[in-house]
Amino acid sequence: MRYGSIEAGGTKFVCAVGDDDFNIVDSVHIPTTTPEETLAKVVEYFKKFDHIDAFGIASFGPIDVRKDSDKYGWIIKTPKKGWSNVNFVGTMKREFGVPVYWTTDVNGSAYGEYIKRRQSNNKIEAVSYITDGTGIGAGTVINDEFLGVRGTPEFGHIRVKRHRDDMDFDGICPYHGDCLEGVASGPTFEARNNIKGQDTPPDDPVWNIIAYYVAQGVISLTVNFRPDQIVLGGGVCTPQFVEKVRDQFNLLFDNYLDVGPLDEYISRPVVPHNGSATFGDFVLAKKALDESKK
Amino acid sequence: MRYGSIEAGGTKFVCAVGDDDFNIVDSVHIPTTTPEETLAKVVEYFKKFDHIDAFGIASFGPIDVRKDSDKYGWIIKTPKKGWSNVNFVGTMKREFGVPVYWTTDVNGSAYGEYIKRRQSNNKIEAVSYITDGTGIGAGTVINDEFLGVRGTPEFGHIRVKRHRDDMDFDGICPYHGDCLEGVASGPTFEARNNIKGQDTPPDDPVWNIIAYYVAQGVISLTVNFRPDQIVLGGGVCTPQFVEKVRDQFNLLFDNYLDVGPLDEYISRPVVPHNGSATFGDFVLAKKALDESKK
Repeated sequence: MRYGSIEAGGTKFVCAVGDDDFNIVDSVHIPTTTPEETLAKVVEYFKKFDHIDAFGIASFGPIDVRKDSDKYGWIIKTPKKGWSNVNFVGTMKREFGVPVYWTTDVNGSAYGEYIKRRQSNNKIEAVSYITDGTGIGAGTVINDEFLGVRGTPEFGHIRVKRHRDDMDFDGICPYHGDCLEGVASGPTFEARNNIKGQDTPPDDPVWNIIAYYVAQGVISLTVNFRPDQIVLGGGVCTPQFVEKVRDQFNLLFDNYLDVGPLDEYISRPVVPHNGSATFGDFVLAKKALDESKK
Repeated sequence: MRYGSIEAGGTKFVCAVGDDDFNIVDSVHIPTTTPEETLAKVVEYFKKFDHIDAFGIASFGPIDVRKDSDKYGWIIKTPKKGWSNVNFVGTMKREFGVPVYWTTDVNGSAYGEYIKRRQSNNKIEAVSYITDGTGIGAGTVINDEFLGVRGTPEFGHIRVKRHRDDMDFDGICPYHGDCLEGVASGPTFEARNNIKGQDTPPDDPVWNIIAYYVAQGVISLTVNFRPDQIVLGGGVCTPQFVEKVRDQFNLLFDNYLDVGPLDEYISRPVVPHNGSATFGDFVLAKKALDESKK
């Protein structure tokens, strides 16, 4: 079998081909330009291979995942210029005629982590994955199913208690100002201090402020779902930052519920090299293939 | 068939007997005193009937609902004096020897609303129920299952953005101070103004402040689960208050996701006379009975 993975992001598409054991046999990065150009390159890449048996696609969005919708498989009214109402799944189906599993970027990562963590501990039933980068999102897998009924979660837009040393910052979410994404996503470093996150010294107090907000996101997932483990991914979530989130979680949550050892409960991805979504996509591609045979 | 419902609250137990169609044939209120006295009266009440075929119990807590736990069916370390480590399900099983469905008070209400709403609209897959009274909690039913993996949700303890006219109020949660329950539960009226909620005039600005917080809870459920409908119950949630929550939701969420008509999305219970939990318990009792026959 050959599985295709597309991790479709706002700046690049990571395409990869996996084997029966979900090992990567080839991969490529394609810059995200116009939908026509980008998807043409994606199709061209996968056509180089003899055959692809199924695809797993984890896409930026918002996307339509409601199976009974006319726009199922589409990227819908996204702020990313030119990409609204792009029929992504339709394009792949037309070109390759094979099963496609279609979900959000962060769900792909969540699924990869869920599968990998279950391989070493089969008592794990639920994993949430928070990504903090250009935006903030979360995906949750409970007993092999993604959470989200009317549509995919939009976790980045929960409200948070403002940090007392950050009250003058209005936040950058165009819809809500100071929702979680508006005060704790990567671009908020520069919006506050004119210095990008990656150039901000680790002892700058802004890291604690952002960890204070992300810890509130962890609390939200904890009390709402009671997942087994929460993964922190994305560019903001360096090892030092994740340690700060654990500290703030301890301070804010005051051991209210037993979540087990904190370094297991809140941790970075276990799939190496930012590969959670690619690995998840391969397994989801297999799932789509298996379901198509039923 | 005769189904028994116990809605076990911190001030009273509402016990009821239902028929095949889940109509109430008899009911009684028993004050919550010591566990020995209260449970003895509960047992005595149900023993008056020829037979009870199964029970549905919706209990205050925290409770243990993990089937593989030694304390399954217990009320565990609750702040309510004398009620920690009470084996509620064990008592009922010993006395009656029939199947018992065991869940939280708010899950019982959520289930009753879920079933009743599906009877008039079978497209509904997920309903969340928020109760705002002595405390704040939420229960969510998705495709006939309760949400909550490691344990039951503790929704009241999410953090919220503080209202600018309420910054001096520290909140009353003994664990977290100003979590949602700490700033928006019933007793916060008196903690702020020395006047109980039911005696606070409807035009007092504190109602808007509390609606501002509860609306953030609605946003949390919305973006985390994308449920079809959210029910607001409990003593604080008068019709006027629910209208204020809709207004605050509109202001805070800015139409970010399509949730449909707001008076359907956010509404008071459709089961009349505070009966959501009793109705839910009857259906859950039947579910326990059906499962015991498999």
